[in-house]
Amino acid sequence: MLRSLGGATLAAALPAPVVGATRTDGVGSVVILGAGIAGLVAARELEQRGVDVTVLEARERVGGRVWTLRGGDSFTDTDGTTQRVGFGDGLYLNAGAARIPSHHDGVLGLCRDLHVPLEVLVNSSRSAFIADADGPLRLRQAANDLRGHLSALLEKGLRAGSFDQTIDAPTRKALESFLTGYGDLAADGHYGGSARSGLARPPGAFDEVQQAVAPRTLDQLLANPNLAGLLFEEEIYMQATMLAPVGGMDRIPRALAASLRRPVVTGADIVEVRRAGAGVGIVWRDAKGGAQVVRADRAIITLPLPVLAGIKGDFSAPVKRAIAAAHYQDTVKVAFQSRPFWEEQQVYGGLSFVGGETSVIWYPSDRFQQPQAVLLAAYMALDAAKSFAARPIPEQIALARAAVDRIHPGHGADLQSPVVVNWRKTPHNLGPWLDWHADGNSLDDFRLLNQPDGPFLFAGSHLSQYSGHWQEGAVLSARRAADTLVPLPANVTPRHA
Amino acid sequence: MLRSLGGATLAAALPAPVVGATRTDGVGSVVILGAGIAGLVAARELEQRGVDVTVLEARERVGGRVWTLRGGDSFTDTDGTTQRVGFGDGLYLNAGAARIPSHHDGVLGLCRDLHVPLEVLVNSSRSAFIADADGPLRLRQAANDLRGHLSALLEKGLRAGSFDQTIDAPTRKALESFLTGYGDLAADGHYGGSARSGLARPPGAFDEVQQAVAPRTLDQLLANPNLAGLLFEEEIYMQATMLAPVGGMDRIPRALAASLRRPVVTGADIVEVRRAGAGVGIVWRDAKGGAQVVRADRAIITLPLPVLAGIKGDFSAPVKRAIAAAHYQDTVKVAFQSRPFWEEQQVYGGLSFVGGETSVIWYPSDRFQQPQAVLLAAYMALDAAKSFAARPIPEQIALARAAVDRIHPGHGADLQSPVVVNWRKTPHNLGPWLDWHADGNSLDDFRLLNQPDGPFLFAGSHLSQYSGHWQEGAVLSARRAADTLVPLPANVTPRHA
Repeated sequence: MLRSLGGATLAAALPAPVVGATRTDGVGSVVILGAGIAGLVAARELEQRGVDVTVLEARERVGGRVWTLRGGDSFTDTDGTTQRVGFGDGLYLNAGAARIPSHHDGVLGLCRDLHVPLEVLVNSSRSAFIADADGPLRLRQAANDLRGHLSALLEKGLRAGSFDQTIDAPTRKALESFLTGYGDLAADGHYGGSARSGLARPPGAFDEVQQAVAPRTLDQLLANPNLAGLLFEEEIYMQATMLAPVGGMDRIPRALAASLRRPVVTGADIVEVRRAGAGVGIVWRDAKGGAQVVRADRAIITLPLPVLAGIKGDFSAPVKRAIAAAHYQDTVKVAFQSRPFWEEQQVYGGLSFVGGETSVIWYPSDRFQQPQAVLLAAYMALDAAKSFAARPIPEQIALARAAVDRIHPGHGADLQSPVVVNWRKTPHNLGPWLDWHADGNSLDDFRLLNQPDGPFLFAGSHLSQYSGHWQEGAVLSARRAADTLVPLPANVTPRHA
Repeated sequence: MLRSLGGATLAAALPAPVVGATRTDGVGSVVILGAGIAGLVAARELEQRGVDVTVLEARERVGGRVWTLRGGDSFTDTDGTTQRVGFGDGLYLNAGAARIPSHHDGVLGLCRDLHVPLEVLVNSSRSAFIADADGPLRLRQAANDLRGHLSALLEKGLRAGSFDQTIDAPTRKALESFLTGYGDLAADGHYGGSARSGLARPPGAFDEVQQAVAPRTLDQLLANPNLAGLLFEEEIYMQATMLAPVGGMDRIPRALAASLRRPVVTGADIVEVRRAGAGVGIVWRDAKGGAQVVRADRAIITLPLPVLAGIKGDFSAPVKRAIAAAHYQDTVKVAFQSRPFWEEQQVYGGLSFVGGETSVIWYPSDRFQQPQAVLLAAYMALDAAKSFAARPIPEQIALARAAVDRIHPGHGADLQSPVVVNWRKTPHNLGPWLDWHADGNSLDDFRLLNQPDGPFLFAGSHLSQYSGHWQEGAVLSARRAADTLVPLPANVTPRHA
């Protein structure tokens, strides 16, 4: 099947074959385009079902957007700009995927199966900040002063009888009693500040009684355009506990790749995707420019749609149109190496909400109290990302530095070794993800690309309900593709269920 | 000074001497009773200031309530019950101190200075549970349904004009707009559930749109006696990010002890605390029962007050009375080894609020996805602890198992190798901590014991504003004692400031 490779090299950790998997008539071999999570999971699933699988990957590494940058790495954007990562030993940036929710059973199951050690990813810290006109505001103060004021308002309304028609007497009574603790209210129902909001003076060695910070008023809080940053931690995909592989997110695709019987073919530049009889023929160019062809019964294509749009393919006209029409969004990450000055301000992980174009600062969750760390100084999406991405890189770096200076005055100067990852300008991606419900994208296209087009199947997080935002979508989409090609009998429970 | 030891053994990591520290007249030597955090920090501080320090510790280990239990350890309670810890390799229970807030600069500074690696301690997870009459309720649902209902109530009140006299028009407008996002309300201001509360169906591979869980009503939520568990994570000492040393909390006292010039004398049973001239004479018995005496200019006594009450001491009458009068509380931890079934329910760290006598279940924050882990199945304080502690150990184990079964039905049977740590029955402690504002304790006694009694100083977390609950109090109290004996000149900034 694979013309240019001598034979399958046996990888260290072979997946256990699934007993009872039945091949669909004629599906003995599958070529998979792209060795991101979707491609790798599809390969693993199909190998487990006895299929002869070849994975072609344009890059010299696997993982796609699961990309971990370390000192010495270098990369070139589509505009020709090359960056060399200057991080010290052991430091890294997860340039793409960087967190796993505790309910993403697919990805977490892979980590378990592949023995990828996980650690906590701190996605919310009460010590982090919200930018505010009156100076950086700790999340603990924003959250707890707000809850206090709102509880006091409700309490007042209850006492005034404002809710007598809305809720019954027992509920009113229970609520009134609960609100005192919920808002940390005084006996008279007033909110006058709380130690939950922070300590102006911590408890001391002897008679230095702790003293809470002075509360901010409801007006002050509501005037802050970044206050909604408080709710970030309650988004279902952002809630504690979040996890990440120890040492970098790329441990997952690396472990997946190592588990395959036949190694991924890297440096394989796809030239053409052809129909060949009832099957497929994939023309690709190796690193030396030599043309190669892989034939297989089917192809699973996991390439990002903007990349696929630039490749000659024997797709049906509607599929071609759908691929060409997909509009991806922007996102940029700007990271620096720095001594961890934020720890001196009691910040260990979590995000500060800066607002504006740079949006957030994201602190590292590991390697605490080391001399050096990697700080994600800016990470944004949507409109902020669009305008930010349009700026020259030195301007992006300066803006990210200024954002850090806003939350941590004087510390912009501590930031060294900048790295800017602009996903729209990243070759083999040309964008981070897409929103099928916006930007002129069409749900009909989403549905169309989720159906086989002759011998071609499309898969990837972008074709799942996750719209490309999460690895879990890639896992699910890949498994769906594998199930389409080699259905599991009804009496067989897949290992991942 | 120390009669029985040949000479000072030079420890690996010697503290740097503080330049300019001035000894108070006559304070050339200090004996410290107790090698918990307070005793060890006092020793380190005084050695840094050039004082000749001897630390006497009754146990064969340092750390006091910073006690990490591992497989093979055994311990005997004051009632003669011996337990042997059956945990597997690498597993441990922090039987006492188990978390460090991100704002405890004293303890965290020690970890930095002593190169004790830290990791995240997950003290709150949205995936954990609150026991509920209608079955275990995820924290994410309790928190977000509650916020939704309360936001909807406020919104309704705002629209009905109930707050027109309370807050001005611009604030009302800003609040109305903010509440929509805060509570995840529908456009009409109604709360009809939210994906923040959890997913009945997660997003799928293709057209399986995510579906939020059905919301619980405000009535249902308020009827839950454990609902206040939601606020636990907002207590200033419980807020994310929390930290713990990798491998066990006892890494801290061990590192402290290793940093001392003269090793701690362990197995030193204090028999009598005497005045000797202007100084002190401490009579103690070594492991073989041989009587020993240490003389020094001063003594810093960090022993828990119930222990000190049982030792003959040349204290003034009021001090003797204060020591004897101190009333400590109860706390019990019941832990098991188990396969981590909670991970199958997407729980990685955090606490479930069970209520009743067993109070909480606390999940491990490290060693995720390993075959075995240690689960803290019950941990309680106050009245719950008092009644729980009075039960026979087999009953305590059965209750803890039942609590786990309540939140994780069927999994009580997975729990193996129980360990019960009852701090009131723990020799050399006789109680976990005390509340100076309750239980008949007197703030006058607190003040009295915080003053020198002739050549004796008392120190420890119990004499700080932390009332013995946190290591930080021990650090601060110990530094205060050191500063009393050897004040730092005004122009010298202590290393820890």
